[in-house]
Amino acid sequence: MPMTLEAVRELDRWDPLATFKARFALPDGEIYLDGNSLGAQPLASREAVVSTLDQWRDELIKGWNQGWFDAPERLGNLMAPLIGAGQGEVIVTDNITLNLFKLLGYITESQGRQRPVILSEGGNFPTDGYIAQGLCRFAGYEHRVLPEGAALVDYLDDRVAAVVLSQVHYRTGRLRDMAATTQLVHEHGAEIVWDLAHSAGALPVDLHDCGVRYAVGCTYKYLNGGPGAPAFLYVHRDHQAGGWQPLSGWHGHAAPFAFDGDYAPASGITRFRSGTHSALIYAPLEASLRLWQEVDMAALREKSLKMTELFRDCLADLLEAHGIGDITPPPAERGSQVALIVREHGYAIVQALIARGVIGDYREPGLMRFGFTPLYLSYEDVWQAARHFREVVERREYLAPRFQERAEVT
Amino acid sequence: MPMTLEAVRELDRWDPLATFKARFALPDGEIYLDGNSLGAQPLASREAVVSTLDQWRDELIKGWNQGWFDAPERLGNLMAPLIGAGQGEVIVTDNITLNLFKLLGYITESQGRQRPVILSEGGNFPTDGYIAQGLCRFAGYEHRVLPEGAALVDYLDDRVAAVVLSQVHYRTGRLRDMAATTQLVHEHGAEIVWDLAHSAGALPVDLHDCGVRYAVGCTYKYLNGGPGAPAFLYVHRDHQAGGWQPLSGWHGHAAPFAFDGDYAPASGITRFRSGTHSALIYAPLEASLRLWQEVDMAALREKSLKMTELFRDCLADLLEAHGIGDITPPPAERGSQVALIVREHGYAIVQALIARGVIGDYREPGLMRFGFTPLYLSYEDVWQAARHFREVVERREYLAPRFQERAEVT
Repeated sequence: MPMTLEAVRELDRWDPLATFKARFALPDGEIYLDGNSLGAQPLASREAVVSTLDQWRDELIKGWNQGWFDAPERLGNLMAPLIGAGQGEVIVTDNITLNLFKLLGYITESQGRQRPVILSEGGNFPTDGYIAQGLCRFAGYEHRVLPEGAALVDYLDDRVAAVVLSQVHYRTGRLRDMAATTQLVHEHGAEIVWDLAHSAGALPVDLHDCGVRYAVGCTYKYLNGGPGAPAFLYVHRDHQAGGWQPLSGWHGHAAPFAFDGDYAPASGITRFRSGTHSALIYAPLEASLRLWQEVDMAALREKSLKMTELFRDCLADLLEAHGIGDITPPPAERGSQVALIVREHGYAIVQALIARGVIGDYREPGLMRFGFTPLYLSYEDVWQAARHFREVVERREYLAPRFQERAEVT
Repeated sequence: MPMTLEAVRELDRWDPLATFKARFALPDGEIYLDGNSLGAQPLASREAVVSTLDQWRDELIKGWNQGWFDAPERLGNLMAPLIGAGQGEVIVTDNITLNLFKLLGYITESQGRQRPVILSEGGNFPTDGYIAQGLCRFAGYEHRVLPEGAALVDYLDDRVAAVVLSQVHYRTGRLRDMAATTQLVHEHGAEIVWDLAHSAGALPVDLHDCGVRYAVGCTYKYLNGGPGAPAFLYVHRDHQAGGWQPLSGWHGHAAPFAFDGDYAPASGITRFRSGTHSALIYAPLEASLRLWQEVDMAALREKSLKMTELFRDCLADLLEAHGIGDITPPPAERGSQVALIVREHGYAIVQALIARGVIGDYREPGLMRFGFTPLYLSYEDVWQAARHFREVVERREYLAPRFQERAEVT
């Protein structure tokens, strides 16, 4: 290990984000490097859920007038500063899959359906492509795929209505140039919907600064909103009056309690709401987003990059000696994860690490992912995780039969 | 009041469902007649949520393999016996609005898009019509409206792909003949999607017996799943292999963890899942559905009708004297609510009742709704609620300025 434990502890002593760790409920004896799949639990989130249970019990239907009904907009406004959006430009609702359907439908209608192609990204997290396929099949559009690694410009023409891309890739952790890509797409007369699943809460995001008009993202990864917490949807204020989104439910109506026979979209971001939402799931996320208001995003980015570098440095010689590839992009193009590729035993290595209390995840084919969440990980956690990784590989612990058996992993 | 308090208490002594009331957390000093909007909280639901919070804290990502991922199917199987469906025919997911979109898209694709019309019901709860409008607008179909009170047969022709109707009407509480209506629609070569929002948990429902192929419903009303608890979606087992549903997300994929580039629908009811769901919201609903497994639905129906009759009998002379209309249908055509119509002051009367701890709701224009939930209401509750109603009207309490001010009510 290139750095001593003492030197690493010195980093922790000077870490400006160190106090956040005490505000999370973390399982004993674990080093959790899977916050890019499901974030840890803020202490305040637990209290918020219990308080919402009290509200359900005591207020019953009146609860809807006491913060439940407008939770999508209220939490959207808490999300806004974390992604460089303005007030009234974000709602928290449904999930990424459904929000993509709404935005793609909205964009094509706003364009008068002059362009029949939706372009999504090969090798991206599959639900983005699946919902684009479903939408195209249903609306009679053409689904085009940008192969992984191909140049976007070669796939843009005047038939492309909209492009869906992830700012940070779920496998490699590669960070795209959002400003340049957005400009390129707009120059071709198309729109782009950014998926911020692996960037919101992982690094500073500035949608306005990058000229972004449409984005979605999830809150259960880096933002610690709870398992399957609702997603967010962003539409730039100048692009909110384009038409209908196709999932036109009563909560997106201009006057939901007038019980009109005809749908009329609400003004502003509210038109992107659909049907009735669960009040309960907003409680833990709201508590987490309030904690996030205190976070200095520049400090977060600095710590994130120092942690990923520390992990890589601790393992560089080992990876080379054992033929394990490190496909983590260089710092300027990196999200907040380390991505390692093995020809075999990748699943078993991750299982052997889990048995030691180091939680990463495995994604076919051959990918070991380790997410680094600056709010609740210390530098010492990272160093210890690297030590465990070294021991698992050097001692070939992964060859134990119990680690080779496959179970479904999300 | 035509019945003495003593006689009413005698009814409670012989009520076979009386013990269920102690299994709910009910606010002190309230008589809650709004379980048709939001059901009360089962004690076990509270414990289940806290236990899921523990699971998030302690198991983190592993929770998805410990019951979270398959919750839609598991809870669907708990729903099945309550609505006369079989195992593998129901999932619990998303909300009614989104589930209607899936089913209408699925049905039209299964029919080869030969029929361009979706028929929905005027005067029904508006989200069903709104989502039908959105779907038609997006897919280029025609949205046709069945006016309230019109004969369905006059609106069926060989252009109608699908009909959306509610089994119990949200305003009047009128119960449709599901078997005869389903048969009529099928005879015209169309499909029908039943909305069971006001019937599931309110009365015995037998989808198989009525020949129903498609249905949706909500779980936060009579089924007590919590505010905005996820909806259910039913597809008869013989009609589950028809094609894609348009909201094709990764949880509805045949192999969600293979991360294939192309969407392929899962077999069976799972194809009606879409994107990632919140694990937290399944916890209270599962606890409630387990309680429901103990309920004798025939006894539930008997008590429901006796309660609505008791309320109406207690108020008959008063309503007549004050020109308040009782549009509650006769018992055989009744859900589990009483519907009263006033020309003016309806909102204020409901507010004055709420101030006395009797919770009903008001729906424009002029409708006072009172829902009767046999699991946590006693006959004495009903009698006392009627007494309060009588006093509010006879003493003109509703004329107080504080009851006349309007606030948004869900």
